[in-house]
Amino acid sequence: MATAKFIYDTADRCPDLYYACKFFAYDPYIFIEARGKKYLIMSDLEIDRAKKTAKGCRVLSYSKFEEIAGKKKNKPSQMDVVDTILKKIGARTLLVPPTASFSMVDGLRRRHYKVIAGEIPFYPQRLQKTPEEKRELIKAQRAVFDAMALAERTLRACRIRKNCLYYKGVILTSEALREMINLELMRYGFITPEGTIVACGKDTVDPHNFGKGPLRPHRAIIVDIFPKSVGSLFWGDATRTFCVGKAPDKLKKLYNTVQAGQEYALKHIRAGVNGRTIHEGIHRIFENNGFKTGEIGGRMQGFFHSTGHGVGLEIHEAPTRIGPVDQILKTGMCVTVEPGLYYKDIGGVRIEDLVFVTKTGCEILAKYPKRLEIL
Amino acid sequence: MATAKFIYDTADRCPDLYYACKFFAYDPYIFIEARGKKYLIMSDLEIDRAKKTAKGCRVLSYSKFEEIAGKKKNKPSQMDVVDTILKKIGARTLLVPPTASFSMVDGLRRRHYKVIAGEIPFYPQRLQKTPEEKRELIKAQRAVFDAMALAERTLRACRIRKNCLYYKGVILTSEALREMINLELMRYGFITPEGTIVACGKDTVDPHNFGKGPLRPHRAIIVDIFPKSVGSLFWGDATRTFCVGKAPDKLKKLYNTVQAGQEYALKHIRAGVNGRTIHEGIHRIFENNGFKTGEIGGRMQGFFHSTGHGVGLEIHEAPTRIGPVDQILKTGMCVTVEPGLYYKDIGGVRIEDLVFVTKTGCEILAKYPKRLEIL
Repeated sequence: MATAKFIYDTADRCPDLYYACKFFAYDPYIFIEARGKKYLIMSDLEIDRAKKTAKGCRVLSYSKFEEIAGKKKNKPSQMDVVDTILKKIGARTLLVPPTASFSMVDGLRRRHYKVIAGEIPFYPQRLQKTPEEKRELIKAQRAVFDAMALAERTLRACRIRKNCLYYKGVILTSEALREMINLELMRYGFITPEGTIVACGKDTVDPHNFGKGPLRPHRAIIVDIFPKSVGSLFWGDATRTFCVGKAPDKLKKLYNTVQAGQEYALKHIRAGVNGRTIHEGIHRIFENNGFKTGEIGGRMQGFFHSTGHGVGLEIHEAPTRIGPVDQILKTGMCVTVEPGLYYKDIGGVRIEDLVFVTKTGCEILAKYPKRLEIL
Repeated sequence: MATAKFIYDTADRCPDLYYACKFFAYDPYIFIEARGKKYLIMSDLEIDRAKKTAKGCRVLSYSKFEEIAGKKKNKPSQMDVVDTILKKIGARTLLVPPTASFSMVDGLRRRHYKVIAGEIPFYPQRLQKTPEEKRELIKAQRAVFDAMALAERTLRACRIRKNCLYYKGVILTSEALREMINLELMRYGFITPEGTIVACGKDTVDPHNFGKGPLRPHRAIIVDIFPKSVGSLFWGDATRTFCVGKAPDKLKKLYNTVQAGQEYALKHIRAGVNGRTIHEGIHRIFENNGFKTGEIGGRMQGFFHSTGHGVGLEIHEAPTRIGPVDQILKTGMCVTVEPGLYYKDIGGVRIEDLVFVTKTGCEILAKYPKRLEIL
């Protein structure tokens, strides 16, 4: 008997499940691919919606299998029902995602199923984007940069007074600018379940600090926007660093160095290249400019995150780490290019674009200017 | 050697991880609880933020363990690093969440760790809410009803013309009202990663149809709002069903029956009661009023979802199903009470509140009127 693919998860936790059937629900459901046929086993609550919207699947009723299992045993367990389904479909060797729950796998093994771990992602082909998927990512990046333009316009409209930025007469805070960005994205059909970074000054030194309080002039302001399309479930991701008013020389140098690092990466990324050499190349540029990486005064400083990660149905997907690890890039992968430098005394700078890897180089999926100072 | 709790997951996928350390990151990290001490093992990117914000944990550096593992073996695998960490902490028997990935568990077993499956939730105490957790849920429910009030005000301000609702001279759609609700929630610090249901007419017959197109008079409009607090990560959840203009008699009867079902549940829920008896009691009321449940014309109709589910750090948490299964309610559990009836020819009605279970009954966590017609 051939190996069947088996997923029992939520589409939210397991993007491969959504990829396989194009049906989204928040509750877990069962997907089986056996002998070239795809099956969804749905609860009474979801079965009609699944029949209407799932792609290329035969949709079967969980409660009917529960009834069948109930004829053999009073109050059948979930595992009894799964067993009934697998017997009906005729699957004994199961390929499951390596993220599958081990208690489910232990249960299957106790019933003498052979369970094999698939890869991450379970459908590796989803990393190499089709033209249609690429279009969805371009749409997401355009929404990101529409929101970025709004942020930049707002910063430009500010007046500097007493070390604060005043927008329409009111002190502009990280929270207020973040809300404007998020509302703008929502209008385009995008949500920001993982938040939006609008960090200023010392908050920028920690790349994952979301930022709070008044935005300040003459300091770094990092705006990192990564929304998800409600329609396609694809994500966008981009970052710009701004400074309202004249920037200190040290910050300017930091910015130019990060930009040089990003340009190096954009020039060298193409199918067949090892991500490690890109990452190391950026490190070399940073060090040649005098910017070292490591623990300084009990705190990580310099360039201590990866150069990038894959983006698609997940905000962080394979290749999860273009960094100090071997990772050969392939045609059609969509990855962020986001070097950054962070120092306690200067602040942080990060510049990020999303690119589509080709045989000969890479295409930036939507473009937006890179300029530090807003004067 | 005593059993250590071990979690390697993201806080997003594993709410117990967040519960254990009160630290949130989107990337996976390791949590260990051994001999009464809690440990977090963090990447360079997150370590400083974890040191600042995690509660009651010793925060250790993943890359330092990677270095140690690297002395024994060139390019140590993730499992080599995990092994190094567990040896250092002195843990050989591991209690892990049953949702733990089976490839990780297989890897640990190959290295002769004893791995035991914990329960769902991993920290069962999180189902019985503390006064502080209850306060967060009340805040979430208040935000839900502020948004519900906005929705109701908007529907009330509509004019009926040619089978449409006009708000400020424009046809009001599901999409537009949903956006208003979501924006309102965002202003209070809540996001809606799982969406908001604003369904009308035939869309209401499917409980998980989010709704689209123009809202109609004299038909059921189901508004189901379930946002998550960005600050506390607690969820809210409530539903009301409206009808703009006079409701058809059949819809009124459906509404009154659902309301009677909900009142029955609110009256009988208390600690020690079996959820099954509540669910069956509602079914009895529905059937006595002539509303049957089952497949009619190839489609599920009647009351074919559960009466409720737990809400907390998850929108669906244990008790996941107050339905046709044995489920004894306990003091401090917060569960939805949301009976509904759905018929192709009448439409759907659902009324939902969130309650806190006590010894003697239940408290509704925030109150909002129940009235079908908006005249």
